[in-house]
Amino acid sequence: MTLIKFIEIMAILVGAFSGFIEARRKRMDLVGVFTVAFITAFGGGTLRDILLDKRPLFWVTHQEYAIAIFVLALVASPLIRTLRQIVSERLIVVADAVGLGLFSIAGTSAALAAEMPIFIASMMGVITGIFGGVLRDIVCNEVPMVFRDGKPYAICAFLGNWLFLLMGKYGVSHDFALWSSCLFISGLRLLTWKFDMRMGR
Amino acid sequence: MTLIKFIEIMAILVGAFSGFIEARRKRMDLVGVFTVAFITAFGGGTLRDILLDKRPLFWVTHQEYAIAIFVLALVASPLIRTLRQIVSERLIVVADAVGLGLFSIAGTSAALAAEMPIFIASMMGVITGIFGGVLRDIVCNEVPMVFRDGKPYAICAFLGNWLFLLMGKYGVSHDFALWSSCLFISGLRLLTWKFDMRMGR
Amino acid sequence: MTLIKFIEIMAILVGAFSGFIEARRKRMDLVGVFTVAFITAFGGGTLRDILLDKRPLFWVTHQEYAIAIFVLALVASPLIRTLRQIVSERLIVVADAVGLGLFSIAGTSAALAAEMPIFIASMMGVITGIFGGVLRDIVCNEVPMVFRDGKPYAICAFLGNWLFLLMGKYGVSHDFALWSSCLFISGLRLLTWKFDMRMGR
Repeated sequence: MTLIKFIEIMAILVGAFSGFIEARRKRMDLVGVFTVAFITAFGGGTLRDILLDKRPLFWVTHQEYAIAIFVLALVASPLIRTLRQIVSERLIVVADAVGLGLFSIAGTSAALAAEMPIFIASMMGVITGIFGGVLRDIVCNEVPMVFRDGKPYAICAFLGNWLFLLMGKYGVSHDFALWSSCLFISGLRLLTWKFDMRMGR
Repeated sequence: MTLIKFIEIMAILVGAFSGFIEARRKRMDLVGVFTVAFITAFGGGTLRDILLDKRPLFWVTHQEYAIAIFVLALVASPLIRTLRQIVSERLIVVADAVGLGLFSIAGTSAALAAEMPIFIASMMGVITGIFGGVLRDIVCNEVPMVFRDGKPYAICAFLGNWLFLLMGKYGVSHDFALWSSCLFISGLRLLTWKFDMRMGR
Repeated sequence: MTLIKFIEIMAILVGAFSGFIEARRKRMDLVGVFTVAFITAFGGGTLRDILLDKRPLFWVTHQEYAIAIFVLALVASPLIRTLRQIVSERLIVVADAVGLGLFSIAGTSAALAAEMPIFIASMMGVITGIFGGVLRDIVCNEVPMVFRDGKPYAICAFLGNWLFLLMGKYGVSHDFALWSSCLFISGLRLLTWKFDMRMGR
C-alpha cells in the first residue's frame, strides 16, 4: 500500500515537470502553466478514477500536491529558462520514461483493486500512463503525439501492464511484480528511444 | 431488454468501423487507430453514463468489445487499405446512418430508465448519437464536423428521439416504438444526405 | 440557499449569451450554436460536479434552462446579427465579468458544501468560473484564451475565492461574504480590463 503511494507521488512530480516545460514552450501565461502542469500530472489518474467512479480523487484528498504545483508554477518561469540550459534532452526523456512506468503500473493496480476484468485493467493502466500527455496535447491544440509519431510509447506501457498482471496471476510476490514491471516499462521505453524504433503504419 | 442490448452491439461495431477509417485517414499509428476507434464507438455512451453517473460502463462489463476493437486495430491497417477500395462512400454513409439511429434511441432509452426529465432524455439520446464523432474530431484536432457543416445530422437524431418519447407517452408498444424510431432517424439521415439538404446559418 | 440559486441562474444566462456570440463568430450551424452555448453556460459547473461526484447535475434537474437555451439558439441567428450592432463590446465585457464573479463564488461555495479542503475549494471555484470558456475554446479548436493572453482573468477569480474563504473563516456573515466576493471579482476584472493589465510570462 505505501509502495503504491510512493509510486504515485514520484509519478506526479515527474508529470508536473514535463507539463511545465511543455506549457513554457507554448509561451503560456501563469494560469496556463499551472493548469497544463496540473492536467499533465493528474489528468491520466483523474480520467481513470472518473471511469471507475472512484472518489475522492487523489489530488482532492492530498491538496499538498496541488499547492506544490501552484508554488512551482509561480517560480517556474525564470527557473525553467535556467533549467532548460542545464537539463539535457536526455534527462527529460529518462524522467518521462520513469513516469510512464510508475503511472501505468499504479493505474493497473488501482483498476485491479476496483475488480475490473483483466483486459480493462491493462487499458486503465495505459490510460493512467498516457492520458495526462494526451489531455495536455488537446489543451495545447495539437493532435496527441502519442497517437501519431509511431513510437512504441503506449505499447511499452501495455506490455508492462500485462507482465504485471501475469506475474500477479502466477503468484509472484506483489512488491517484486510492481517494481520489476515499472522497470520493464521504463527500460523498454528508453531502449526504443535509444534505437529510435518505430511501428509501421 | 435484449432488444436494447442488440441495438448497442450493432451501434458499437458500426462506430468502431467509422473510427478506424477516420484514424487511418489521419495517418495515425496503431495506438491512435485503436484509441480513436474506441472513442468513436464508446465515447457518446460513456459521456452519457458519466453525466447520468451510471456504472459500471458498458465496455467495462463487456471487455469482449474492447478486445475485439483491439484485435481489429491490429489487422486494420492492411485490411482498411483493401476495404477502402472495395467499400463505397455510399456504404459508409448508410452504416453511419444506421449507427446514428441505434445509438440515439439506445441513449434516450437509457436516460428514461434513469428517470431523466423528457427534454434531457432527448438531449442524452443526441449526445449518445453524436458525441463519439465529436470526441473523435476533438482528438483529431478539428472543429467537430457535426457543429459546422450545416447538415441536419443531430437534428435527425433529435426528431427521432421525440418520436420515440411521444410514442412511449401515447402507449405505443415499446418494441415497435424502438425500431420505428431507429428506422425514422436512419431513413431521415439518408434522405437529407441523398438530397444534400442544409440548414441555413 | 436561494441566494446561491439566484447566483447560478444569472451566471448561466450570461454564459449562454457569450457562447452564442462565440459560436456565431465561428460560423457554426444551429447544432453548433446550441451546443457551444450550452457548454459555455454549464461546462464549468458540470466539470466541477463530475470531479466532486455530485449528481444530479444542475441542468438535469432544471430542464427549463436547457429548453431556454434551445429556444434562444433557434432565434439566435437573426437576433445576434441585430444585437451585435446594438450591443457594444463594453457591455459584453461587463456581462462576462459579472458571470465570472457569480460562477466562481457559486463553485467555491459548492466545493465547501462538499467538504473539500480549502485550496481545492478555491480551485473548484476557478474551474467553475473559467472552464465553460476553456471547453468552448477546445471545441472551437483553439488554445484556450484564458491560458495564453496574459490577462489576469483566472487570477481575479482566484483572489476573490480566497476573499470569500477567508471571510467565511473569520465569521463574516455568509450573505455579505457571497455578494462582496462576487463584486470584488467582477470589479477587479473590469479594472484590469480598463487598464489593460497583463501578467509577465
